[in-house]
Amino acid sequence: MTDEGEGGYWPPPEHGPARDLVGYGAEPPVVSWPNGARLAVSFCLNVEEGSERSFAFGDAANEPNPDYPKPFPADVRDLTTESLFEYGSRVGVHRVLELFEDLGVTCTAFACAVALAANPSVGRRLVDAGHEVCSHGLRWTEPWTLGREAERDAIRDAVRLFEDTVGVRPRGWYSRYGPSIHTRELLHAEGFAYDSDAYNDDLPYYVEVAGDHHLVVPYTMLYNDAQMAGRVGGEEWLASLVRGFDQLLAESATTPKLLSIGLHPRFSGQAARTSLLREFIEHAQSTGQAWFARRDEIADVFTAQHPPPGPRTPTT
Amino acid sequence: MTDEGEGGYWPPPEHGPARDLVGYGAEPPVVSWPNGARLAVSFCLNVEEGSERSFAFGDAANEPNPDYPKPFPADVRDLTTESLFEYGSRVGVHRVLELFEDLGVTCTAFACAVALAANPSVGRRLVDAGHEVCSHGLRWTEPWTLGREAERDAIRDAVRLFEDTVGVRPRGWYSRYGPSIHTRELLHAEGFAYDSDAYNDDLPYYVEVAGDHHLVVPYTMLYNDAQMAGRVGGEEWLASLVRGFDQLLAESATTPKLLSIGLHPRFSGQAARTSLLREFIEHAQSTGQAWFARRDEIADVFTAQHPPPGPRTPTT
Amino acid sequence: MTDEGEGGYWPPPEHGPARDLVGYGAEPPVVSWPNGARLAVSFCLNVEEGSERSFAFGDAANEPNPDYPKPFPADVRDLTTESLFEYGSRVGVHRVLELFEDLGVTCTAFACAVALAANPSVGRRLVDAGHEVCSHGLRWTEPWTLGREAERDAIRDAVRLFEDTVGVRPRGWYSRYGPSIHTRELLHAEGFAYDSDAYNDDLPYYVEVAGDHHLVVPYTMLYNDAQMAGRVGGEEWLASLVRGFDQLLAESATTPKLLSIGLHPRFSGQAARTSLLREFIEHAQSTGQAWFARRDEIADVFTAQHPPPGPRTPTT
Amino acid sequence: MTDEGEGGYWPPPEHGPARDLVGYGAEPPVVSWPNGARLAVSFCLNVEEGSERSFAFGDAANEPNPDYPKPFPADVRDLTTESLFEYGSRVGVHRVLELFEDLGVTCTAFACAVALAANPSVGRRLVDAGHEVCSHGLRWTEPWTLGREAERDAIRDAVRLFEDTVGVRPRGWYSRYGPSIHTRELLHAEGFAYDSDAYNDDLPYYVEVAGDHHLVVPYTMLYNDAQMAGRVGGEEWLASLVRGFDQLLAESATTPKLLSIGLHPRFSGQAARTSLLREFIEHAQSTGQAWFARRDEIADVFTAQHPPPGPRTPTT
Repeated sequence: MTDEGEGGYWPPPEHGPARDLVGYGAEPPVVSWPNGARLAVSFCLNVEEGSERSFAFGDAANEPNPDYPKPFPADVRDLTTESLFEYGSRVGVHRVLELFEDLGVTCTAFACAVALAANPSVGRRLVDAGHEVCSHGLRWTEPWTLGREAERDAIRDAVRLFEDTVGVRPRGWYSRYGPSIHTRELLHAEGFAYDSDAYNDDLPYYVEVAGDHHLVVPYTMLYNDAQMAGRVGGEEWLASLVRGFDQLLAESATTPKLLSIGLHPRFSGQAARTSLLREFIEHAQSTGQAWFARRDEIADVFTAQHPPPGPRTPTT
Repeated sequence: MTDEGEGGYWPPPEHGPARDLVGYGAEPPVVSWPNGARLAVSFCLNVEEGSERSFAFGDAANEPNPDYPKPFPADVRDLTTESLFEYGSRVGVHRVLELFEDLGVTCTAFACAVALAANPSVGRRLVDAGHEVCSHGLRWTEPWTLGREAERDAIRDAVRLFEDTVGVRPRGWYSRYGPSIHTRELLHAEGFAYDSDAYNDDLPYYVEVAGDHHLVVPYTMLYNDAQMAGRVGGEEWLASLVRGFDQLLAESATTPKLLSIGLHPRFSGQAARTSLLREFIEHAQSTGQAWFARRDEIADVFTAQHPPPGPRTPTT
Repeated sequence: MTDEGEGGYWPPPEHGPARDLVGYGAEPPVVSWPNGARLAVSFCLNVEEGSERSFAFGDAANEPNPDYPKPFPADVRDLTTESLFEYGSRVGVHRVLELFEDLGVTCTAFACAVALAANPSVGRRLVDAGHEVCSHGLRWTEPWTLGREAERDAIRDAVRLFEDTVGVRPRGWYSRYGPSIHTRELLHAEGFAYDSDAYNDDLPYYVEVAGDHHLVVPYTMLYNDAQMAGRVGGEEWLASLVRGFDQLLAESATTPKLLSIGLHPRFSGQAARTSLLREFIEHAQSTGQAWFARRDEIADVFTAQHPPPGPRTPTT
Repeated sequence: MTDEGEGGYWPPPEHGPARDLVGYGAEPPVVSWPNGARLAVSFCLNVEEGSERSFAFGDAANEPNPDYPKPFPADVRDLTTESLFEYGSRVGVHRVLELFEDLGVTCTAFACAVALAANPSVGRRLVDAGHEVCSHGLRWTEPWTLGREAERDAIRDAVRLFEDTVGVRPRGWYSRYGPSIHTRELLHAEGFAYDSDAYNDDLPYYVEVAGDHHLVVPYTMLYNDAQMAGRVGGEEWLASLVRGFDQLLAESATTPKLLSIGLHPRFSGQAARTSLLREFIEHAQSTGQAWFARRDEIADVFTAQHPPPGPRTPTT
């Protein structure tokens, strides 16, 4: 058994960002959500169809078919999988947005810039309805393959394309699986208000980045509709959302919390699943204590009530 | 990050058919189904057992066992998997057709020509009961491996074998996973009225093929009984069908839609699953607003009400 | 597209037993089960723990862990998986047999000879309670790797070990996945009354073997408790059994059928699953129309009512 | 078919510990749990986050992402998976311990020493609340790769680190998947009171180790919350726990048993799953017959009532 480092077994030797296994622990901070709401519910609608990996784009592989797993060659157009993704952009995203508009819910779109270029009407509908457009990158890429400089350029390219397509500079970033060891530092330097590349907490928190404080609004995979892609059925997924909401609401009597729910137009935009989503929202609304929040709103509320420990150092 | 094409990031460089991520968007066309029905339900019965890949046919691999995944050599008869497929042809297809006849439901058979050659009585029963025989190809093949000329020959071989076995020329085509970049153009040239190689919409639509308009009647994997092959349980599958039907029916108050449900005799022809299917059909029938339609009927109704934008150019 | 054989596309070229995709079709034979019962329920208890592949036996691989899939080296004792299998022999088989004795159910044990050698008390308990001991082979082997002569020797070795351990010569055979192209012919020559290497029917049937008639009592994977090994939950499995039973019972009003349910002591012998099994049996018994039958009894009843078309030719 | 050993087919040739497929069989011993309780329920909380394999630690592979399976390179920090594991240590473990404290449940922590070093407050909370700290090793390792001497050193290193972090020497050991052929012998020589490297029984038992008797308190994978990691839904998991409890409770009228339930902070510490856990505990408590026991207590009670057959030989 090797001895890790000189002083002991923890922390691991450095290869990038330090790990923090402690966090808030048993005493998370108390935050007050607007209008006395106890639980913030953040729907994250992954608007990314059209940006997935495909031979048509010259990528090294076609994205696997989520509904019908099957080995498929990399150097052939996989028209089946392409078509399945297209459902999200052509049909599914409108069904979900229709539901949100009908029930008065605002959300954050984790949008790939190319997906908005492929279907500009979606970007307009998002902005018109008051949803946040958060950057999910340019296309599906693997940032750790780029190197620091090229990753910075890709971030800037994505920002420019968002400005071109929706006229808005995103304030947040959520990496398609997953960030590199440089991502957070680059995002901070580019002035992003927050990132969501974290699955390790129920509340926003600060991390030290380049001597400054950087805000993280954490996300989760558990309540993600991708759980239904060949893994669990819809009734189980709905039950999971309801249990998660009820448990967090109960805890929020003392320390208000955040429930993040990841959605994909190609999944939740299918009729059977939009039906599940409606049922969950109606349950949450029936309590009168849910705040359907954009992540930039969450970031602003949290920062206002819990400013970073020291003065924020301007970065170049 | 590379710049895709000269003008920007979308569309991807050409390697075959262009992608359309926009579709009807928020404003699908209004179609009136016969007899005031609001929702068209298209059962697609995949009559293909006997045509699956197997060492007995000299194929490069045995089809994997859907009920009991297990690595198996390619150069040995996998009598277990063969037998499991045979259940569909010997028993399952009759159980499903019996149910359809009992409840007055007509459907489209996605039939492989060789499967009908292996069990001619099934072809006769399909035709006698008024079901549509749509081509699912000759056998399970991978069209993208053939090249354009050989694929055209295979399409013509399949058509001839359908004429030999059921005396009918199919008007539609649905590729076993999945089409090549030539398939749609070849089908249009051969005079097919529609194809179902699409998963990207809730309604039929036209695409431009060789300067002409070609009708697509889209399909879906979501409500497919293959979801039950080691992925979700039957009760979850039934719940998914009921939710999908109810949601689409609600939407059909303004824009009537299409619900496609893929079935396989080796899956839905098992007693426990036929029981699920009966329960769904009885639910749909209880609303009095479902039209259990053949896909060629759907194509005809749609084309009559929404003729293609320009005159259809005869193809050779 | 190649032309299969000279005359057409079906049947496939010969590489062993001919395939039959037709079977009884829409008109299965009518069989009368004893005492006016309408539906025969055949529990097949796979008594095989201890015979699975393992490095301890010098096998080329350890059997994968069904409850916790994980790559594991072939040349190391996988004590975790071994222990998990042992549960079936030490605890699970007794819990299932206790339930059967409590509810008056008899079954067929698909027994590996080595599993009975490893735990002789199980063989005695099976025989004492009136269950059938059907051969599931000597150990878990892959018959297609042996060649015809060695496979015949392995069959004879297995028979001898059954005679040594339980004092009974098995009348039936069910191959561990799966039979070779020689298996059925060898079993017929050795005088077995039936085999269950088929998943393609709801009723027994004859196949021609070496110019004679051989009885097949088909099995199924659908209702197998292995479906619960990381695939579907227990409530879904129970629902599947109840639906299958109810559907087949309804059909049995005109043509009595057979429901086969595969069980494994390491799965169904776990307390939560024995609870599911009890609930199913009580449901079936409440109808008063189920016959919990041994497969040799089923074979005898069927053969008596539907003797093979011609006289059975003695084989050497 | 080879002849295994000289005398027959069982046992397998020796490559380490002998297998026992017989166990208690149909006649398990009768044990009386404290206070007339009929069923012992042992929650095993796997406190291991931070000790999983990762590139940050110089391991040969990153631990796969349990919530989002995806191939990932071995020589890159997988910050997504790291973050997901961190949830268990930062948030999840406190939510589960809060629940246990609220409902008066004590448990055994299967703790990796490095996980406690990474978050010392968790060790303190475990000890303060009266839970047992059982060794789950130093970090996630594969003991069979070490060799006997290095494995002994690793065991001693782990013990020292437990003494440093929580001030307690563990009395039990549970190997991260899985033990080597030397593990049990080494643990016995180091004076451990029991190990849980077994899945083959419902009650503790003795095995002969180096001429002495060694106590095994068996564990199970069936009721483990890892079943929910992409396999079955939460409602199915809860139903499984309730069925398992009810069945074992019924059996415990004559022979009291042990129900082991494995939990992981990164799974059961997610809000939706803590809700499931609460529901199960409340069900068990409502019977008034459950003893929520530490495994060292179970070992002590069993040993006192069923001392090993002969005098325990002191080991070096």
